[in-house]
Amino acid sequence: MLKNKGVLFLIPNTLGGESLTDIIPQGVMERVFSLRTFAVEEVKSARRLLRKMDRSFPIDDCIFHILTKQTKESDRMDMLMHLLNGTDVGVISEAGCPGIADPGAELVSLAHSQNLKVIPLVGPSSIFMALMSSGFSGQKFTFHGYLPKERKDRIKQLRDFEMDCKRNGTTHIFMDTPFRNMNVLDDLLNELGDFTYLCIASNISLPSESIQTKTVSDWREKAYDLNKIPVIFIIGKPQ
Amino acid sequence: MLKNKGVLFLIPNTLGGESLTDIIPQGVMERVFSLRTFAVEEVKSARRLLRKMDRSFPIDDCIFHILTKQTKESDRMDMLMHLLNGTDVGVISEAGCPGIADPGAELVSLAHSQNLKVIPLVGPSSIFMALMSSGFSGQKFTFHGYLPKERKDRIKQLRDFEMDCKRNGTTHIFMDTPFRNMNVLDDLLNELGDFTYLCIASNISLPSESIQTKTVSDWREKAYDLNKIPVIFIIGKPQ
Repeated sequence: MLKNKGVLFLIPNTLGGESLTDIIPQGVMERVFSLRTFAVEEVKSARRLLRKMDRSFPIDDCIFHILTKQTKESDRMDMLMHLLNGTDVGVISEAGCPGIADPGAELVSLAHSQNLKVIPLVGPSSIFMALMSSGFSGQKFTFHGYLPKERKDRIKQLRDFEMDCKRNGTTHIFMDTPFRNMNVLDDLLNELGDFTYLCIASNISLPSESIQTKTVSDWREKAYDLNKIPVIFIIGKPQ
Repeated sequence: MLKNKGVLFLIPNTLGGESLTDIIPQGVMERVFSLRTFAVEEVKSARRLLRKMDRSFPIDDCIFHILTKQTKESDRMDMLMHLLNGTDVGVISEAGCPGIADPGAELVSLAHSQNLKVIPLVGPSSIFMALMSSGFSGQKFTFHGYLPKERKDRIKQLRDFEMDCKRNGTTHIFMDTPFRNMNVLDDLLNELGDFTYLCIASNISLPSESIQTKTVSDWREKAYDLNKIPVIFIIGKPQ
């Protein structure tokens, strides 16, 4: 770890809320104030975050590189060059923590390949906040990312989660694109057993946050509108 | 969700560091200041956290219930009664986030069974901070908690992780009690393939934090002392 190389900071973003005071530690904001070079999923949301951290952040003096799944190797190498030349770089994803169900890991990987320092900064993660609030086992859990688009495949996977949870007690966490949430909810309520426990965590960290764990049979009793809002689904065994 | 019931707040603790400013948002501390009833893994570390948040925190006016794996159902019911009677309760684990590889989930479960509100507060999680800094896939990952004590069983499990990572690209996260870290490291370096990637994240959020991802063959080149320090191990595929 050479001292004159730059550090790659992983900067948490909001989960869509307006206030930072509940979700970003003061020291994290101070670290970010010292950065001028960023690798971001979306320039607009990154600029918004920086403005929120400090109204007078010199955004026009900053360099923003776009970092998504589509970013070419050569562009990632440009970002790496900043680090190798001694400039610290901050990674900002559109929401939550970079690298977890979000771009960022490719650049982190490159940094490790050059023995560069990578420092994660504390912030909100909807996956973790949902898990800790579910009441399910946090001793063994799997995050599956997005579910298959095809209904048949999705149902098979949901049933596999249910079976594995029954047999081994493993907690299964998953999500889908917000406009498919209601399809996922339909499949969960139609295809899983009455006594399977399901946690639905929506709008985490927002004023409208709701995190509830109930049996599938209890979930069926009322209609819920999860359309186009961020939702984390968890199948697990209450502890 | 009845308005006159108490709320169960899940309060993050430090990962052993001295300063809170880098790891606990200001708004989280303000929420905690309003609480006087706590369910804690260890009274000493909970008192220390509250004192760190505010030197003048009225700790002697607070009620502390012990919440560990050994806590009896009847004691958990006492904690639930506070909530049902309209008192907010804060859960504090010894380090990091309650409910994730730490006690807390049982009380959260009870709260959900009574349709009580559970609110997770933002703070540091060594598992998540290690994962986001590993450069491995955050699209699909499993946390396994502590490894088996028996060397034979441990090696079998490590090989299963390696195989699954190769076949399916799943990231495998695990840990062990700090005094067994060197045994785990030995097994990893002796039993896994040269080209398997391993991330070792130690002392997360402390000044001595180190997070590095290398091939097993590269890890073998130098001696590392992981004895009695907090370590997260991750086997994965660089993105």
